[in-house]
Amino acid sequence: MRMVDLIARKRDGLALTREEIDWLIAGYSDGTIPDYQMSAWAMAVLLRGMDDRETADLTLAMAQSGDMLDLHDLAPITVDKHSTGGIGDKTTLVLGPMVAALGLPVAKMSGRGLGFSGGTIDKLESIPGFQTTLDGATFRRLVREVGLAVVAQSGDLAPADKRLYALRDVTATVESMPLIAASVMSKKLAAGADCIVLDVKYGSGAFMRTLGEARHLAQIMVKIGQFAGRRIAAVLSSMQQPLGQAVGNALEVREAIAVLRGGGPSDLVELCLVLGTELVLLAGLTQEPDEARAMLQATLANGSAWAKFHAMVSHQGGEVRTIEQPERLPVAPVQQPLVASSTGYVAAIDGMALGLAVNALGGGRSRKEDQIDPAVGLMIQAHVGDLVEAGQPLLTIHAATESAAAQVAPALLAAYRFSDQPVAPPALVEAILR
Amino acid sequence: MRMVDLIARKRDGLALTREEIDWLIAGYSDGTIPDYQMSAWAMAVLLRGMDDRETADLTLAMAQSGDMLDLHDLAPITVDKHSTGGIGDKTTLVLGPMVAALGLPVAKMSGRGLGFSGGTIDKLESIPGFQTTLDGATFRRLVREVGLAVVAQSGDLAPADKRLYALRDVTATVESMPLIAASVMSKKLAAGADCIVLDVKYGSGAFMRTLGEARHLAQIMVKIGQFAGRRIAAVLSSMQQPLGQAVGNALEVREAIAVLRGGGPSDLVELCLVLGTELVLLAGLTQEPDEARAMLQATLANGSAWAKFHAMVSHQGGEVRTIEQPERLPVAPVQQPLVASSTGYVAAIDGMALGLAVNALGGGRSRKEDQIDPAVGLMIQAHVGDLVEAGQPLLTIHAATESAAAQVAPALLAAYRFSDQPVAPPALVEAILR
Repeated sequence: MRMVDLIARKRDGLALTREEIDWLIAGYSDGTIPDYQMSAWAMAVLLRGMDDRETADLTLAMAQSGDMLDLHDLAPITVDKHSTGGIGDKTTLVLGPMVAALGLPVAKMSGRGLGFSGGTIDKLESIPGFQTTLDGATFRRLVREVGLAVVAQSGDLAPADKRLYALRDVTATVESMPLIAASVMSKKLAAGADCIVLDVKYGSGAFMRTLGEARHLAQIMVKIGQFAGRRIAAVLSSMQQPLGQAVGNALEVREAIAVLRGGGPSDLVELCLVLGTELVLLAGLTQEPDEARAMLQATLANGSAWAKFHAMVSHQGGEVRTIEQPERLPVAPVQQPLVASSTGYVAAIDGMALGLAVNALGGGRSRKEDQIDPAVGLMIQAHVGDLVEAGQPLLTIHAATESAAAQVAPALLAAYRFSDQPVAPPALVEAILR
Repeated sequence: MRMVDLIARKRDGLALTREEIDWLIAGYSDGTIPDYQMSAWAMAVLLRGMDDRETADLTLAMAQSGDMLDLHDLAPITVDKHSTGGIGDKTTLVLGPMVAALGLPVAKMSGRGLGFSGGTIDKLESIPGFQTTLDGATFRRLVREVGLAVVAQSGDLAPADKRLYALRDVTATVESMPLIAASVMSKKLAAGADCIVLDVKYGSGAFMRTLGEARHLAQIMVKIGQFAGRRIAAVLSSMQQPLGQAVGNALEVREAIAVLRGGGPSDLVELCLVLGTELVLLAGLTQEPDEARAMLQATLANGSAWAKFHAMVSHQGGEVRTIEQPERLPVAPVQQPLVASSTGYVAAIDGMALGLAVNALGGGRSRKEDQIDPAVGLMIQAHVGDLVEAGQPLLTIHAATESAAAQVAPALLAAYRFSDQPVAPPALVEAILR
């Protein structure tokens, strides 16, 4: 087999066989296929596409390039959730404890934030003492004992994907649906869960800008999961405005705690119930969606989800009194309201602009090496559909200094678009693919 | 400027500016743009195309990545010919002396054969003693004194093209019309001639298989030359069967000598007259094609073209008695006829199969390092349109051993296709683009 022939076949729009894809990923992993051939192939894939079978083969080959976790010594069935990323997305912090409270173990590997999007690991690290890097044995022990552990993704998971992703990043080959799907799913498959629910977000605050793109990506990922013999579903959810009110690491942990204690923003609660219902159904705890939903609601009402979160924080070294008294979580010294300059209905909120503002406040990363300030962020008060009068607050900026707050204010104001006609709030969940 | 952004623009089908292309080639030349970005860009170019202005800018940037020869100290106007390569193509050996005899200096840099196609330098080196690597000063002196010199292309001519071509070769990005055109023309522009005629061949013995492809390539190359301020024309010529009778290095030199002495195959004479007419017109010796043709015919009839060839061989160190008595050129020990197995009209001859057979006989290269045997080759007797009876010779195999001849015979027989109906010989010249 010669790589140049495989590139030529893909360039000409033909599909590669499983053997060819396995050979390609093995060669890229061991260094016999150089980056310059891989990037030409990636561009051919981006412009010519891959069919579902090819994409699934690529995903499995990348998953098998490193450790393939087997969690069956921990529990007969484990569950996992993956979000394609959005602004104010703290669902993992709520959903994990909810399903763990129903006896479905969650062994979760999460990422850090980069660019305009936050990451679960950064959020958890705003809890003083919380350890996100655990050795494999400790991770397994916590999943077995607590039913829930969340750690930073290790380097041994799908290393071929890691290397390919870095190459795609500098060769303008990120924006390929099959390659995005294969990248996400290779890590999910390697992470070992039997049941996977995907939260595929669309809108200005998500990587997929349109519902059509999100649906396409979700369809590919569901097919990959099915090819790989996993139980899988995908929820298409709106990121046309931030989820909940809080954007920023400690602020989001505080909001997640509010939900776990029976309160919190209704959109966040609803999304966790929808995602959780899919996991409960996939795991076979019931076959009735209504019953699954009721079971999940009970975990919030009866405190069992909160107890799981509490146990997780405790076992992973976090100071529990900061979650028991969330006002002890890091607080930004400056809290400055941003007010509407005229009266109108909120028509749209540009989530990416909000994410970039949090980034500029010090709450995110432009480069991997950047340190982050857990306290800063935004608390959204005016959502899409709300009627806001001139002078009323749109949101509150939580910043390290007044000048930092002032610097991001114009971009935040520009992120709001108004209408003089009433605007219907966007649907939170558009579709579920099973 | 960031390379990833330029790749993305090309991926999305947009055109790069001249400044961007200059920056790209400069960065690739100095190593700041790595191969893996260049190959992704090349694949995007292959699949998305480049417009004529972009292609011309790329060509000039690659030409200017190394030495740009200025021949104006040698003569007010110099001429050059480039062939896209074909089987039995010895036109340079004839055309160069013809136009030099009319006072148009030819400072020609030629290539070696690779794959199924031969190279002028290999052909000249079958003349004992002939030197194809001259230092720049000697090359210029010979052009000034003799009016004609042919040397192997130096490494300082369009080095960016050389590097990019090597990368394209292993990343399945060779088959892009704009990149092929830019590669050819960057070397032509750097070589400094004012007037350029392109011999763009099509058919089974050429790189361009169809007339449509050849026309497209020719159009791009003519546009590039015009953008660069050169006088340029392109001749679309048939390579549906080998040119002339001889395929193989010494055999082709012998055939070229026959033409220069007033004989030789009529198709070879005709093509040299057509190409020469374009050069004479471009150089402005006359504005009448018929007059140009008559001037060129006279150089063959009056011995002046032969005298130029003789002077070139003499000045470049070749043993002149081997061209005065061409039977002294290397001769293969085995000369074995290949006969038709049944009666019929020759419908087609697969030139690539013939080229590969000469290669297998030792007369060409599969890899750059291969040594070649100048004596071996083929003498074609039956051409397209000929009626051949069973047992009559199709061609003669010139080989080092009988077993070598026997080994290529089946492939050569398969290269001939027969018809029981009369077949019209293909037109030699299909069109001229000016």
